Amino acid sequence: MLKYRTGIKNLPTYDVVERDWNIKLNANECNMNLPPVVEERVMSGLSRLAFNRYPNTETESLAEQLAGAFHVQRGNILLANGSSEILEKMFFCFGGRNHKVVYPRPSFSMYKIYADLSNSISVPFDLDEEYRLNAGKFVETVNTNKAHLAVVCAPNNPTGTHIPLEDIEYIAQNISCAFVVDEAYIEFDKKSATEIQHKYPHMIVARTFSKAYGLAGARVGYMIADKKITEMTGKVFMPYHLNILSAVTADIVYQMRHEYEPRIAMMIAERERMALQLKQMEGIKIYPSATNFILMKYDKAAALNEYLINIGIGVRSFGNAPGLENCIRISAGLREENDTFMKIVKEFVENHTEE
Amino acid sequence: MLKYRTGIKNLPTYDVVERDWNIKLNANECNMNLPPVVEERVMSGLSRLAFNRYPNTETESLAEQLAGAFHVQRGNILLANGSSEILEKMFFCFGGRNHKVVYPRPSFSMYKIYADLSNSISVPFDLDEEYRLNAGKFVETVNTNKAHLAVVCAPNNPTGTHIPLEDIEYIAQNISCAFVVDEAYIEFDKKSATEIQHKYPHMIVARTFSKAYGLAGARVGYMIADKKITEMTGKVFMPYHLNILSAVTADIVYQMRHEYEPRIAMMIAERERMALQLKQMEGIKIYPSATNFILMKYDKAAALNEYLINIGIGVRSFGNAPGLENCIRISAGLREENDTFMKIVKEFVENHTEE
Repeated sequence: MLKYRTGIKNLPTYDVVERDWNIKLNANECNMNLPPVVEERVMSGLSRLAFNRYPNTETESLAEQLAGAFHVQRGNILLANGSSEILEKMFFCFGGRNHKVVYPRPSFSMYKIYADLSNSISVPFDLDEEYRLNAGKFVETVNTNKAHLAVVCAPNNPTGTHIPLEDIEYIAQNISCAFVVDEAYIEFDKKSATEIQHKYPHMIVARTFSKAYGLAGARVGYMIADKKITEMTGKVFMPYHLNILSAVTADIVYQMRHEYEPRIAMMIAERERMALQLKQMEGIKIYPSATNFILMKYDKAAALNEYLINIGIGVRSFGNAPGLENCIRISAGLREENDTFMKIVKEFVENHTEE
Repeated sequence: MLKYRTGIKNLPTYDVVERDWNIKLNANECNMNLPPVVEERVMSGLSRLAFNRYPNTETESLAEQLAGAFHVQRGNILLANGSSEILEKMFFCFGGRNHKVVYPRPSFSMYKIYADLSNSISVPFDLDEEYRLNAGKFVETVNTNKAHLAVVCAPNNPTGTHIPLEDIEYIAQNISCAFVVDEAYIEFDKKSATEIQHKYPHMIVARTFSKAYGLAGARVGYMIADKKITEMTGKVFMPYHLNILSAVTADIVYQMRHEYEPRIAMMIAERERMALQLKQMEGIKIYPSATNFILMKYDKAAALNEYLINIGIGVRSFGNAPGLENCIRISAGLREENDTFMKIVKEFVENHTEE
């Protein structure tokens, strides 16, 4: 009889196999592959790799480039398999038995799972009815609970909500536990907490190449934090945890990040265009977004989602998740994909509006 | 003041930056990059990837290929970032507070770290003076300690020792806790525990592409186990933990694994040739190896290691690690590299033998 660690049984099982969507707007991916000029450099970089050697200079080169770009030292950077691995390990390092972790709700659904995995006590902090984070109350919750870890997602997924950098800084100034700022979508927003991280030795900024830089398949993320934090938390990452193919790809993509500026601008423009059109449809509420996706609330969300599934359009429906009832999240795809999506939603709404 | 999880402070820090060796025989890597015919297919596979999408069909394809090759179901396979991630997660799943884990000593140094990371109680099981594992005593140790997890490394790293499949099966038949067989080097040995895994619902066979298949840089490993185990332990792996570049590379390499047979045979032949020559040198003891490396014992090991470092040859010296005093592990490199290495050792031994 196998005896597993307590709590594993109750963790959810992931169903990783995706449908073959005609239009895929469900995972906040960038809807374009590598720009051709970047692809050429990436393929050339991959062709020169020593596949047979453990990672070494490849990951160092990426870490050093990031340090330079953010005006920090190499020792302030930890690389990882997507920002997922950063989050998992930060929950592990600061969580544990009787350790409380505070994170917003609704927000990235993995926070609760990482809290459970690390045997921590989850203290979800409810956003207001417009999904804004009240920084004062957040600080109060962290401090009254004597939390070991506080997490915010800025901008917030899946609501798209911008969190002003002043609010992030207010939180940093008023809590003393580890403070993770998950910036998976920050490239679609304005100021990053990386600008103020050096002032706060308990602040950890988590970033990813999955969204704005279109490398969801390569799994590369990183964090920027005080050296004391990277040294301590670095011990829980497996040796050689980031492979060289992904490291070289991200290194080249980041060198050529100016190629991504027009794409990011385009995704933002599409997001705004979609928001404007969708909010004119009867019964649809659109929340302001600072990301590459938008959240809509619609009382026939479940039926609409079924309808979309049947014609091969994938969006993210949240069912009865707390605070996300009747909500659907739509990633800003290519212009033509978005047009098709909106045409279908419009038809659905017109057919389902009571006269 | 940041409060970390108990135990993290005492974990070792890895120093990942490698020297630029002239001859690198310190990490049991394959000393050849992709065979040209494989490289061509890999580059073509990589060029067709959707970097912007989360992993999906790429990892499924590899898992299905492995299932087919081992005559098991897809559900019996879990993929991972090297077998390191398999080991880390198995220690996590079966270890924990007051959970004892039994593993051989000397063996793979990460077992102790994974035990510490998972807050488990380590019960190292000492190999005999020839580094053989006494299966009867191992079973007794596991059972008397009421261990939650037992691990063997077959063949054993860093000693190279073959463990007969009959001994593995004897252990499987006589313990009831989770039983991990770490087969990182099995391709250089004879029979694999994958042949008997289907008979034992508590047996987990961990494999890697890092050694015989020369993909240390890509970080791909997998495990084969009962579906109940893969379902339960699968929950603790991060979603999308294996990136598509590594998955596609391993998928193609495994499709073309016949290309690796002559290489593996060559590495085995080199290992034997080196063992034969080294054991003729005065004061050097060589242990029988079923891997791509050999362990030598020599009372001037520390001085020899320093000498090798100075001329740019990297081997693995174990300092004062328990049971490995005066031992050096040498990976079987290319024939010319091995020749250079042996020539230098021979000179050193001749210069240091008391007349």
